[in-house]
Amino acid sequence: MEKPLILITNDDSYSAPGIRFLITVMRQLGDVVVVAPDKPQSGMGHAITVHTPLRLQKLSSEKNYKEYFCNGTPVDCVKLAVDKVLHRKPDLLVSGINHGSNASVNIIYSGTMSAVIEGAMGHIPSIGFSLNDYAYDADFSHTAPYIKSICQSVLNNKLPESICLNVNFPLNDGKIKGIKICRQANAYWKEEFSARTDPHGRDYYWMKGVFENPDEGKDTDVWAIENHYVSVVPVQYDLTAHTVIPLIKKWKIDV
Amino acid sequence: MEKPLILITNDDSYSAPGIRFLITVMRQLGDVVVVAPDKPQSGMGHAITVHTPLRLQKLSSEKNYKEYFCNGTPVDCVKLAVDKVLHRKPDLLVSGINHGSNASVNIIYSGTMSAVIEGAMGHIPSIGFSLNDYAYDADFSHTAPYIKSICQSVLNNKLPESICLNVNFPLNDGKIKGIKICRQANAYWKEEFSARTDPHGRDYYWMKGVFENPDEGKDTDVWAIENHYVSVVPVQYDLTAHTVIPLIKKWKIDV
Repeated sequence: MEKPLILITNDDSYSAPGIRFLITVMRQLGDVVVVAPDKPQSGMGHAITVHTPLRLQKLSSEKNYKEYFCNGTPVDCVKLAVDKVLHRKPDLLVSGINHGSNASVNIIYSGTMSAVIEGAMGHIPSIGFSLNDYAYDADFSHTAPYIKSICQSVLNNKLPESICLNVNFPLNDGKIKGIKICRQANAYWKEEFSARTDPHGRDYYWMKGVFENPDEGKDTDVWAIENHYVSVVPVQYDLTAHTVIPLIKKWKIDV
Repeated sequence: MEKPLILITNDDSYSAPGIRFLITVMRQLGDVVVVAPDKPQSGMGHAITVHTPLRLQKLSSEKNYKEYFCNGTPVDCVKLAVDKVLHRKPDLLVSGINHGSNASVNIIYSGTMSAVIEGAMGHIPSIGFSLNDYAYDADFSHTAPYIKSICQSVLNNKLPESICLNVNFPLNDGKIKGIKICRQANAYWKEEFSARTDPHGRDYYWMKGVFENPDEGKDTDVWAIENHYVSVVPVQYDLTAHTVIPLIKKWKIDV
């Protein structure tokens, strides 16, 4: 059987320990091509680069392993990889391992998960992996068997059309209970900007937020990773609130 | 009755004709505060600015009208406006009028619509307006009665929790048939990068894409604006593919 062709990207940049770990794991599963940002791109969401040119720099070019970095966003990396590096759709796209959780609404801000959603839009089976630890030297070692199992399941079972996976890992505390298929918790970031004044007397603001989670469901991704489970959320990019359409139709808003 | 407090932003920058037109319309409906990007931020998706400081510049400060520009993304503008300008949630957030359609998957790349989704996450009734015309000098005049009617409906009827609206206008061809409540068309952008070589012999790439829409449904936003309707799509930020959860549970992916 031919080995699958696997595209890897992330948002923490090609040099982050999370993607280096993921590359090591994925090379055991197939032929790997890495196209990742040249600098951290956390919080870039689904941003694309339209008004400035993109560049690719080759780092490795072995038979079963190629690596590039790119000056664009994670979504740029996916688009450029498919069109100019692979010249075809890969069999699998994996993104991460993100330094920090992408559970709940973090998926919406995350460059790592936006790359995954871009993959799904391009009809590529796509999975994002994130660890609930922002530390640069976080311990990723416990994630390897789960990553292999989830990737193999996706390759074997095929994901439904337009669906990708958001996988979040709990900390490596030796108590992991297994995988839990979840929904996205309905939490949010409450912003509290830190206001300061620069030496020239001008005000500026640092964004900082507090994650607030009023969603008490035990079927959520946040609950799972806080309770020693690996969370897997099937994700769609159809944002239509289909159940709300009949309600709005009753409004008679026509002019 | 007290006039509603309305926050306005966009992604084409505070100086774009689309937001100037929207400001004029909204001032007829309530007290207006504008916090918009200082430069074009199209295609910024849900990006936020975490690693550099944000600044606000005041442009107007009348009793019923305040305007600021900000060096951040559209989502930054919403967060900063709520925390540091308004010091409370506004009664309505409107974003646009975007120069160019945000129908179908364009919603995912759009800074204009990401600001709207950010509003919904912050429990603010939020609506995005876009015109199917990228031109700087596009004709927005036909949109005013629809904007007023839709905003008034949202203020009167209240949107369901966690739901916002994506409104797209067809061109002003004198044939507009009315408002159609729609779903997001399942289309995509097929990338075809333009590869060039700079004077120093290094390759670079310009992103360009072709919008491909295989979705033939007459209930989609793309169909509506191509057929002289104003499309209104109710949008949710819960990306969970709930109907897929039982399928993935059958996979037995546990290690």
